[in-house]
Amino acid sequence: MRTVTKDTITQSFLDYVADDTDPRLKFILEKLAHHLHDFVRETALTHDEWRKGLEILYGSGEISTPERNEFVLLSDVLGLSSLVDMVNSAEDGTPSSVLGPFHILGAPDVPVGADLVGDNTGDISVVGGRVLTTDGAPIEGAELEIWQTAENGLYSGQDEAQPEYNLRAHMTTDADGRYLFSTVRPAPYTVPDDGPVGELLHATGRHPWRPSHLHFIVTAKGHRSLVTEVFPNDDPYLDEDAVFGVREQLIMEYQERTDASALPNDLAIKDKLDGKFYQVDFDFVLSSE
Amino acid sequence: MRTVTKDTITQSFLDYVADDTDPRLKFILEKLAHHLHDFVRETALTHDEWRKGLEILYGSGEISTPERNEFVLLSDVLGLSSLVDMVNSAEDGTPSSVLGPFHILGAPDVPVGADLVGDNTGDISVVGGRVLTTDGAPIEGAELEIWQTAENGLYSGQDEAQPEYNLRAHMTTDADGRYLFSTVRPAPYTVPDDGPVGELLHATGRHPWRPSHLHFIVTAKGHRSLVTEVFPNDDPYLDEDAVFGVREQLIMEYQERTDASALPNDLAIKDKLDGKFYQVDFDFVLSSE
Repeated sequence: MRTVTKDTITQSFLDYVADDTDPRLKFILEKLAHHLHDFVRETALTHDEWRKGLEILYGSGEISTPERNEFVLLSDVLGLSSLVDMVNSAEDGTPSSVLGPFHILGAPDVPVGADLVGDNTGDISVVGGRVLTTDGAPIEGAELEIWQTAENGLYSGQDEAQPEYNLRAHMTTDADGRYLFSTVRPAPYTVPDDGPVGELLHATGRHPWRPSHLHFIVTAKGHRSLVTEVFPNDDPYLDEDAVFGVREQLIMEYQERTDASALPNDLAIKDKLDGKFYQVDFDFVLSSE
Repeated sequence: MRTVTKDTITQSFLDYVADDTDPRLKFILEKLAHHLHDFVRETALTHDEWRKGLEILYGSGEISTPERNEFVLLSDVLGLSSLVDMVNSAEDGTPSSVLGPFHILGAPDVPVGADLVGDNTGDISVVGGRVLTTDGAPIEGAELEIWQTAENGLYSGQDEAQPEYNLRAHMTTDADGRYLFSTVRPAPYTVPDDGPVGELLHATGRHPWRPSHLHFIVTAKGHRSLVTEVFPNDDPYLDEDAVFGVREQLIMEYQERTDASALPNDLAIKDKLDGKFYQVDFDFVLSSE
């Protein structure tokens, strides 16, 4: 170590790691040191730039709370959260996408066909489809967690004006693997940009917008759990999601409809639909465990 | 962006950076994204591991204060701080080393030959040498900031039992480029290991010790400023500094002496030296600006 140089420091770091260290931790640290050291060497990072980086981290700590975690946001806008999703995504099922910070446990159980619109305003949409195996067989008893923003771009939990669990639900698929609910269209929204991450976005000419989306967690016995989002094909931010969550296979269409007669009879809102509404069809494919 | 994959996300990230972004910032972000993305891809980082990493950052924010910055410590134990020093170190002068968190501005001006021992206990040492150009010419009027731990391994500012500015001084070299002072031997000490960084050290079987050292900042008109540390060649932690600060050229010797008669006459403590003391000779070479 007394001869540590910029070329030997990575090995010196690795030499410090004890032989009985957990092998996976050792491997991760080896890769981390390799890449962070190369980053400093390749940029010849100055002391001022290093200090600026540390200020971003320190400032992220200052602004973070359990409800607003600036480090998650930093990971999001750097594409790291999305990349972790992608490297862990099953190749043969529906792709996963970012969980985001707005999921809340304990949403009410509702039956297939339930109405989530309640007192919400916005375009009425009927969202449904099936949960399938990779062979195309329907999965009965698959569980879905569903959450989305109201028309103002805010989630219940974030927005005191919304009732608890507004636009959140837990549903179990029927014998045909079906899920179905009526809701309003969610809205695009911005990630928080009043902290160090916002500073970084502004310095690089990036906007903080995410395209509108529906969140789903889909689980079924014997299958890999799926955390994902579904995006409308006409959203203006589809090609420039601030957190890199969009995948081609996660894009759906809000199909304009006026005739409700063809909708399933277990759709609670069916008889109340009067005039224009939208229909979204989306099937989820779960990979085997 | 709607076709983002694990192979295209790095380019997608770069495409987001606006054309009129500061070119250096753009270059740094390009390298950062490249290395962080490769890190995730090469490790196939799991969601649990990603969350653990975010916990380390969040926990570092929680424990950090302006006086105890866990992010600096994280940078230190990963070898990043030291590497930043090395990539910015002048090739033809004395190597730089980590500044550390214990530097305080405003240390008292003292003349060449001053005594810093005061009421401190420990091995008396006489430390001196010259500040030189890369051609070996002495630099008159070079300024040195000097700080070190007391015998208990703590710095004044950290340790309420020590007087303000204890073992801290500001000195200006004489016409021969000389600096000289008497002090006590500093002690090895541990970096704080009661936070997330300590957890990481423990998980990898690393200890938190730094070898004892004297800190110097040396500045002179027309020359690059030097922030460095000087380490005794008999320190038990010399080969395993927790923060990678040791450089071969920064190692000095505590030479045991009993005869003070050969010491310079401007050494304030000279006539009081009675019995064993140590002598340290160390010259600083400043690179031209």
